[in-house]
Amino acid sequence: MKFDSRYQEDNYYMKKALELAKLGIGAVNPNPLVGCIIVKDGKVIGEGYHMKFGGPHAEVNAINSSKEDIEGATVYVTLEPCSHFGKTPPCADNLVRHKVKRVVICNNDPNPLVAGNGIKKLQNAGIEVTTGILEKEGLKLNEVFFHYIKNNKPLVISKTAISMDGKIATKHMESQWISNESCREMTHEYRNKYMAIMVGINTVLKDNPSLTSRIKNKKARNPIRIVIDTNLKIPMNSNLVNDNKSKTIIFTCNNDLKKINLLKEKDVDVHICPKKEEGVDLNFVIEKLGELKIDSVLVEGGATLNDSLFRNNLVDKVKIFMAPKIIGGKDAPSFVSGCGIEKLSEATKLEIKNTTMIDSDILIEADVIK
Amino acid sequence: MKFDSRYQEDNYYMKKALELAKLGIGAVNPNPLVGCIIVKDGKVIGEGYHMKFGGPHAEVNAINSSKEDIEGATVYVTLEPCSHFGKTPPCADNLVRHKVKRVVICNNDPNPLVAGNGIKKLQNAGIEVTTGILEKEGLKLNEVFFHYIKNNKPLVISKTAISMDGKIATKHMESQWISNESCREMTHEYRNKYMAIMVGINTVLKDNPSLTSRIKNKKARNPIRIVIDTNLKIPMNSNLVNDNKSKTIIFTCNNDLKKINLLKEKDVDVHICPKKEEGVDLNFVIEKLGELKIDSVLVEGGATLNDSLFRNNLVDKVKIFMAPKIIGGKDAPSFVSGCGIEKLSEATKLEIKNTTMIDSDILIEADVIK
Repeated sequence: MKFDSRYQEDNYYMKKALELAKLGIGAVNPNPLVGCIIVKDGKVIGEGYHMKFGGPHAEVNAINSSKEDIEGATVYVTLEPCSHFGKTPPCADNLVRHKVKRVVICNNDPNPLVAGNGIKKLQNAGIEVTTGILEKEGLKLNEVFFHYIKNNKPLVISKTAISMDGKIATKHMESQWISNESCREMTHEYRNKYMAIMVGINTVLKDNPSLTSRIKNKKARNPIRIVIDTNLKIPMNSNLVNDNKSKTIIFTCNNDLKKINLLKEKDVDVHICPKKEEGVDLNFVIEKLGELKIDSVLVEGGATLNDSLFRNNLVDKVKIFMAPKIIGGKDAPSFVSGCGIEKLSEATKLEIKNTTMIDSDILIEADVIK
Repeated sequence: MKFDSRYQEDNYYMKKALELAKLGIGAVNPNPLVGCIIVKDGKVIGEGYHMKFGGPHAEVNAINSSKEDIEGATVYVTLEPCSHFGKTPPCADNLVRHKVKRVVICNNDPNPLVAGNGIKKLQNAGIEVTTGILEKEGLKLNEVFFHYIKNNKPLVISKTAISMDGKIATKHMESQWISNESCREMTHEYRNKYMAIMVGINTVLKDNPSLTSRIKNKKARNPIRIVIDTNLKIPMNSNLVNDNKSKTIIFTCNNDLKKINLLKEKDVDVHICPKKEEGVDLNFVIEKLGELKIDSVLVEGGATLNDSLFRNNLVDKVKIFMAPKIIGGKDAPSFVSGCGIEKLSEATKLEIKNTTMIDSDILIEADVIK
């Protein structure tokens, strides 16, 4: 490859490193997605990515992939190399030992255990460091990780499929299918990408879902399944209790030890929560999920759970698949039902980030303004 | 102006003629918007547009605007020149008499009284005729006219402002304002563009609206106001009955002659309609509006009227202003309420035509698939 400038060259290889990082989607939570490319004399001599939670870091995989000596090479890495002993030895030390010439970084590590120390170690060893290359793309790629590190709470994504009049089902609760096949496939990608999925008990009672991630021609990771079940109504014969396809965690206000023990025997975790407004205190739930090292939660409804989450200001992002249909009917449920706000000024405010046509449907993505 | 080809030249002037045609928006219904440019020796020597219902045609205005002899000129006109005596003498004859050299047309006239006869007259007189220049843009500009001529019924546009969860108000019916100022300004442009506006009686009882068109720095035409009022509940002191800002037409099933006469004294028209599903038969209403030479109706709700219109397949286009807010609440009204469909397969199907950011909001435009 020939480049007109070092800036262009840095962007080119960092883009490749970000592409590599993406290969870890669904496998590294709650750790970051990281990609690494090693370039020497204008040639890529090594590449790697963070493949698995607790597994070797991207830099290690890239170094190990190289058949040549990396002394004097430039290392492109999407996140500041670590400087502390975690599950693996510090990558910064490793790069110093290998006498690389230059390290190009996309994002600084916000982890207080790293936070600039990686860069300092490299610079102290006389290695040239460039930072901030494709920084915005990196922040987007690792939005879950950055949110989790900063807040100690999961990123909460409310996802729904609605008609143009905001309905999620007919008045007789028929909802299969409102959105088209491509949108439904994207939902399964989300279930792989985000670490957990959350539903209200009514959804379990109505649909008996398994909430797994099914992706064509690709191995997907099933999300941890979280059920908000104030009165512990979950049927012992439901899929979420029996299918063993992923962990199921129930949040309830009901202290029925007999049922709780039966659920524990099925490897289902049950957390007793304080009550708020006749239901599980969702602030408590979200904090607890953070403690459980769950970095992201995809909320798939129903309408009452959505309402409580929005009113408690617990949603961070919204993904709405809108199908070009009109359902109508005052008894047909909307995306967000429940008790609702008192005044228009109390409405949750968002910022639209993207609208994308998905075949016949529109995907509208927005961030809640906090 | 220099052009690389005649095709490029034709497109350039036709675009200008279409821009001129637009100046008639709101003033010509149920007649078409037409613009005309006369070019001779590479110079524009005349231009005009159809300014007013019943007024001179665009060609006449363009010819009258020219200070030079138009013999040998090329005439760009967005609609086939008329060949019949209507409110004005035939434009095709006029162009023949002036010995123009060439006529370039955007759309053929679908009016059975013209339908190719204008072109034939020109060609028979030895004038070169080119058709179909920017045809698609012309069809879009005159979609109201083409729909009305073809169907003898108005184009029905359902317009709403909703939150991201499809609500048009809070559970306490607070709705001012869901959408932003720019969206509200666009609504007033629609009220000018479309010939009539339709609301259900509940909207009148709740808001006492005047349903006029208020546009900054521009004279706007107020739409004819149509109220669907099954039981003739309209208050005699409501704005629609008293403000004289435009014609008000009421469709009712109630034969209360005393009230009807009082309304007539206020210059309000009342039509007694057959009943369907506990309400005014909306098929009857739409046909009647066609007979009354109303070419387009902007429906501004409420939710029950919208539901009846969609279920009776009477809506042609949908314009949804979606604000980045979540309102929630099972008692907060949706865009389309009422009785609703029985099965998902009965949902009204649409095709998304555009999604446009209007500052913070999204405008979603869709056509009902008939």
